[in-house]
Amino acid sequence: MRFGTQDGRFVLLAEGRVLDVHAASGGDLPQEPVAALERWDDVRAFAASADWTAAEALDQSRLGPPVPHPRQVFAVALNYRPHAAEAGYVPPEAPLLFTKFPTCITGPVATVELPEGKVDWEIEVVAVIGRGGYRLGKAQAWDAVAGITCGQDLSERVLQLAGTPAQFSLGKSYPGFGPTGPVAVTPDDLPRR
Amino acid sequence: MRFGTQDGRFVLLAEGRVLDVHAASGGDLPQEPVAALERWDDVRAFAASADWTAAEALDQSRLGPPVPHPRQVFAVALNYRPHAAEAGYVPPEAPLLFTKFPTCITGPVATVELPEGKVDWEIEVVAVIGRGGYRLGKAQAWDAVAGITCGQDLSERVLQLAGTPAQFSLGKSYPGFGPTGPVAVTPDDLPRR
Repeated sequence: MRFGTQDGRFVLLAEGRVLDVHAASGGDLPQEPVAALERWDDVRAFAASADWTAAEALDQSRLGPPVPHPRQVFAVALNYRPHAAEAGYVPPEAPLLFTKFPTCITGPVATVELPEGKVDWEIEVVAVIGRGGYRLGKAQAWDAVAGITCGQDLSERVLQLAGTPAQFSLGKSYPGFGPTGPVAVTPDDLPRR
Repeated sequence: MRFGTQDGRFVLLAEGRVLDVHAASGGDLPQEPVAALERWDDVRAFAASADWTAAEALDQSRLGPPVPHPRQVFAVALNYRPHAAEAGYVPPEAPLLFTKFPTCITGPVATVELPEGKVDWEIEVVAVIGRGGYRLGKAQAWDAVAGITCGQDLSERVLQLAGTPAQFSLGKSYPGFGPTGPVAVTPDDLPRR
């Protein structure tokens, strides 16, 4: 199953068509993506037998970030060893975890005003947490994930690295510094190796 | 004006009484605090002439955090010079900015399970951002603030300081590590020096 937002509303996507979940569920399911994630079992049940009669043709320009207002964003630094080396860091034993403040989130097609300094970018795998949890074991991890999308992690390196110990988050959170989308794919529909 | 939450609902507080804003506004104003902050001018106008007939007696045990689910939390490190020295840091030229992930927020009376490691605490002034803004000048800053409350910044120092450069946020975000409240006070009602 593929999901995302169209004009800010939670939608399913399939074969070049887009289905507004709130409308197609007769108003039962929410139009706000975080609210939809909170009713994920209902969303999956709806999707399994949804009536696509009212679906619209896909117009990429109307798609926004799969989750425009996530409650929290966990970003893992230096997890890609060649990049850690490139940046002059020893790969850490445990992940370094910062945030990209949620107001930086934007869609897959965006004009981002670059601040002064040294703006850099990295391509990221982005996990949309659905059910979530706390102190989960590895075997339960995928159960907590609603979908996978892609994104960019834009950084202004001067601000990111200012101070001791440098706190990465602010320099990674200018408006537009978190493009994501256009769609998220549920784990069961990811390609298998 | 003093505001907060009672049983999770947005309330005003005065002279030992608590007014449910959603109910007292005939359902016009929201019961969810972030939604209320988005209609702050309306909330202030309502408060100026609110009918307190239906207000309840204050029961401190029912008060939660003034904003249980803030969209983002900006935390400023080493801004208090004696603490910076105590922690072995040179006070930075610009504020070091991290987050406390919003799921750590709890109310003024809470039982917090302490994780392994070295848990520490600091008392904080907490600003509730209402209108907000971007690239504001100093003269506009108070306009962006809905209220001031107090809080604690609990930290587990081992995780906070793990890795290079240590990213503070995760070690400061265990469940319950952000007690706030019980009430927020609007800037116009703060004591003047």
